[in-house]
Amino acid sequence: MKVELICVGTELLLGSIVNTNAAYLSEKCAGLGLSCYFQTVVGDNEERLTQVLEMAMERSDIILLSGGLGPTEDDLTKETAAKVCGKKLVLHEPSKEAIRKFFAAKGASPTDNNWKQAMLPEGCIVLENHNGTAPGVIMETDHGRVILLPGPPNELRPMFQESVVPYLSEITSQVICSKTVKICGVGESQAETMVKDLIDSQGNPTIATYAKTGEVHIRVTANAGDKKAAMKLIKPVVKELKNRFGNHVYSTEEETTLEKAVADLVIANGLTLTCAESCTGGLLSARLINVPGISEVYKSGVITYSNKAKRRMLGVKKCTLLKHGAVSEKTAEEMAKGAASMHKADVATAITGIAGPDGGTPEKPVGLVYIACSVKGQMTVKKYLFSGSREKVRESAVSAALVLMRDCILEYYSKVTFGK
Amino acid sequence: MKVELICVGTELLLGSIVNTNAAYLSEKCAGLGLSCYFQTVVGDNEERLTQVLEMAMERSDIILLSGGLGPTEDDLTKETAAKVCGKKLVLHEPSKEAIRKFFAAKGASPTDNNWKQAMLPEGCIVLENHNGTAPGVIMETDHGRVILLPGPPNELRPMFQESVVPYLSEITSQVICSKTVKICGVGESQAETMVKDLIDSQGNPTIATYAKTGEVHIRVTANAGDKKAAMKLIKPVVKELKNRFGNHVYSTEEETTLEKAVADLVIANGLTLTCAESCTGGLLSARLINVPGISEVYKSGVITYSNKAKRRMLGVKKCTLLKHGAVSEKTAEEMAKGAASMHKADVATAITGIAGPDGGTPEKPVGLVYIACSVKGQMTVKKYLFSGSREKVRESAVSAALVLMRDCILEYYSKVTFGK
Repeated sequence: MKVELICVGTELLLGSIVNTNAAYLSEKCAGLGLSCYFQTVVGDNEERLTQVLEMAMERSDIILLSGGLGPTEDDLTKETAAKVCGKKLVLHEPSKEAIRKFFAAKGASPTDNNWKQAMLPEGCIVLENHNGTAPGVIMETDHGRVILLPGPPNELRPMFQESVVPYLSEITSQVICSKTVKICGVGESQAETMVKDLIDSQGNPTIATYAKTGEVHIRVTANAGDKKAAMKLIKPVVKELKNRFGNHVYSTEEETTLEKAVADLVIANGLTLTCAESCTGGLLSARLINVPGISEVYKSGVITYSNKAKRRMLGVKKCTLLKHGAVSEKTAEEMAKGAASMHKADVATAITGIAGPDGGTPEKPVGLVYIACSVKGQMTVKKYLFSGSREKVRESAVSAALVLMRDCILEYYSKVTFGK
Repeated sequence: MKVELICVGTELLLGSIVNTNAAYLSEKCAGLGLSCYFQTVVGDNEERLTQVLEMAMERSDIILLSGGLGPTEDDLTKETAAKVCGKKLVLHEPSKEAIRKFFAAKGASPTDNNWKQAMLPEGCIVLENHNGTAPGVIMETDHGRVILLPGPPNELRPMFQESVVPYLSEITSQVICSKTVKICGVGESQAETMVKDLIDSQGNPTIATYAKTGEVHIRVTANAGDKKAAMKLIKPVVKELKNRFGNHVYSTEEETTLEKAVADLVIANGLTLTCAESCTGGLLSARLINVPGISEVYKSGVITYSNKAKRRMLGVKKCTLLKHGAVSEKTAEEMAKGAASMHKADVATAITGIAGPDGGTPEKPVGLVYIACSVKGQMTVKKYLFSGSREKVRESAVSAALVLMRDCILEYYSKVTFGK
C-alpha cells in the first residue's frame, strides 16, 4: 500500500522550522510496511493544498496530512480536505466537550474560534487529542483514506501512536521490522566495504548503512506476514554482521546510544568514572550525564582549560607542560592519572587538544587531540587529528573518547570475558 | 519570482534522516525575496523524479534540487534533470581534475564510478564543490532555471552560499536584507504580544519571531533596490525593537550566540569565569567553551554530581545538604560561592536540579532546577521549573544559566553603564 505525506505550514516553507514530522511519520509508515514515494510541503492556502491533495489521492492509497488544524482563520486543512473528499463539516459534540474540559483543566476559557475545532467532516473517524484541542480525523473515501493530524509534534506523535498505528496495522497485511546494528571504531567507508557483498546481494531483508560522528549504524529491515516471521529473516543477517564486526558492535537496541553502552559497561563491571577535559570543555561529561542513572558511577569531573588548572586540579607536572606542551601524549596521560586519583575513579578519561579556529602550529595543527584513558591504572593514550570547525573537532573528540573508553574497559576485562 | 525545492533521497522517504536541507534552502530563499510555495521529497527513481520536476517547472521559475549527485548507480538526479531539460551529459575536464585532486589530497585514488561525477549537462553553469566530489549544476532553460546541489549539508551549504546566492541575487532585481534582534529572558508569547502591533501593521520591512530554547529571535526583513536602501528601511524597526526590549536584546549580529554574548561581556569587563554543574553535567561549560578565545577568561570548572563531590570540591556544607537537600537554593548558593573562591573567578555559576526521568518527588519534581550566579561576591539564586525530557530539562537549564549570568553581570555594572 502506498502512503503519501502532506505537511501544511507556511513556517515550513519559510524554513523557520525543520520538518521533523515528515521524518517521524515516514519512519513509522516504513515500519508498518507502507511504501512512501512522495512527501510534499505546502502552505496554508486552499487552492494549492487542493491541488496537492487531489494529486496525492490519485497516486497513493493513504494520505497523511499534518498541520493547519488550529483555531485561527489561517488554519484550513480540515476545511479544504473535507471539500476535496466531498464531506460537510458538522458539530461533533464529544470534541466540543473535550475542548471545554481541556481549557477548564488549565483554568482557562476557550475563545469563540476554538469551537471551530469541534466542527468535523460528517461520517469521519475522530482521533482524540490528549495533548491539545485539535482532534484528528480519518476520512475513508473511494479515492483513498485521508488522515488529518495536528502539526505540533507533541500532539501528532502520541495521536499517531495511539490511534493511527492500530488503524493502519489493521488495513495492511504486511509487517515490517528492522534491527539496527550499531558499530563504533570503524570508519564509514571501511564498514561499507566490509558489508558490500551483503548489500549487493540484498533482497528481503534489506541492509542500509548510516554514518554518525564516530559511529556507523547498519539497519536490517525485513517484511513478512507477522512480526515473528520478519524477525526470523533479520536474525541471521544481524548474526553475520556481529561476526564481521566483532567487538566493534556496541548495541543492537534502538534506544542504546554510544554513551549509554559505555555507561552500561562501567555499571556492569562495578566501576566508577570521571573525566578531565580541556578542549572539549565538559562535552564528554555532558554526554555521559545524559544517561539516566549515571549518578551511581559518575560522581565528579573537571574542566581544566588552563595549564595552571591542569597542575592544580590534576597534578600535571610543570616540567611536563614545559617540555611537551599542554597538547601532548604525556600531558593527557598525567591528566587521566591525576583525575583517577583525585576523584577515586576506576575509569578516568582525559582530553587535551586544539579545537581551533586559532592556536594551531605546523607541529601541532588545529584538530590535534590526545585522549588518555586509565582503567584501574592501565593507561592508554591515543593521538587523533580531526578536521572541521571548532564544534566539529570537539564533537569528534568526544565520540572518539567514548570509543576509547569502551575499548579500554573491554581490553582490561578481556581475560575475564574471553570465550564468553 | 517563485522557487520550488525538490529533495531527492530514499533515506528521506524512509525517515532515516530529517530534511534539514529543505529548512536551510527555504530560509535562504526567503531571505533572497523568493516565494516558495512547494517543497517535495522524492526517491532516487527516474520516473517519479521526472514527474515531480516537470510539474515544478510548470509552476515555478527556479527549481532547487538537492541530493542524488553521488557516484553510484542509484544517484540519478543529474541524469534525470538533464533529460527533462533536453541536455546531453558531456565530460567536464576541470571537474575531472578537481576530483583527481580531491582524492590525491586525501592520499586516495578515485574509483571508476567517481568519474561519472565529472559528466555534466552541456552548456550548464558548473558550481565548484570544495568539500566533496560532486559539482553543482545550473541549467537555464525556457521553462525556468534548474539548480542541482549535492545532498550532504556540509557540501550543500557552502556551495549555496558561495555560488548560488550571488547567482540568484543577480537574477532577482531586488535586494533583500535582514537583521535579527536576539532577545533573551522574555518568553515567546510575551515577546509576540510586545510586537503584535508591529506585526499586524507590517509591510516592508516584514517582522517574524522565532522561538529558541531560552531565546526569541525577531527577524526584520526588507527588500529594496540596493543594500543601502534596504538597510535604511530596517534601521528604524530595529531601533524600535531595541527600545521595547531594552537590556533583553543581547545582539543583532548574525553570528553572535547567547554564549558568545555572555563571553564578550565577561571579557569586556576584564572578568574571569567558572561553572559548577550538577544535573547539567558539563553542558554549560561546554557551550561557553565553544566560543573561540574563551580560554582567556575561563580557566577551570567542575562537575559535582554527588553530594560528596559538592562538599569536597566546592565546600558545600554537610548541614546544608542534610537540611535543604542537594537541589535547593542554599546548595546552589554554596556551590557558586565555593566555585568562585576555589577557582579564583569573578563570575561563578552553579546549577543543581532534577533532570529526570526519575528522582522527582511531589515537593521536588523532575524539572526543578536552582541556578546561582555570583559576580564579585554579589549573589543571585533563581528557581526554575522546566518541562520535557531529561535532555530538554538540561538544555533549558543551560540556556537559563546563560541568561542569568548576563543579567547578573549587567546588574553588577548597571551603575557604570547607566545612561550609556
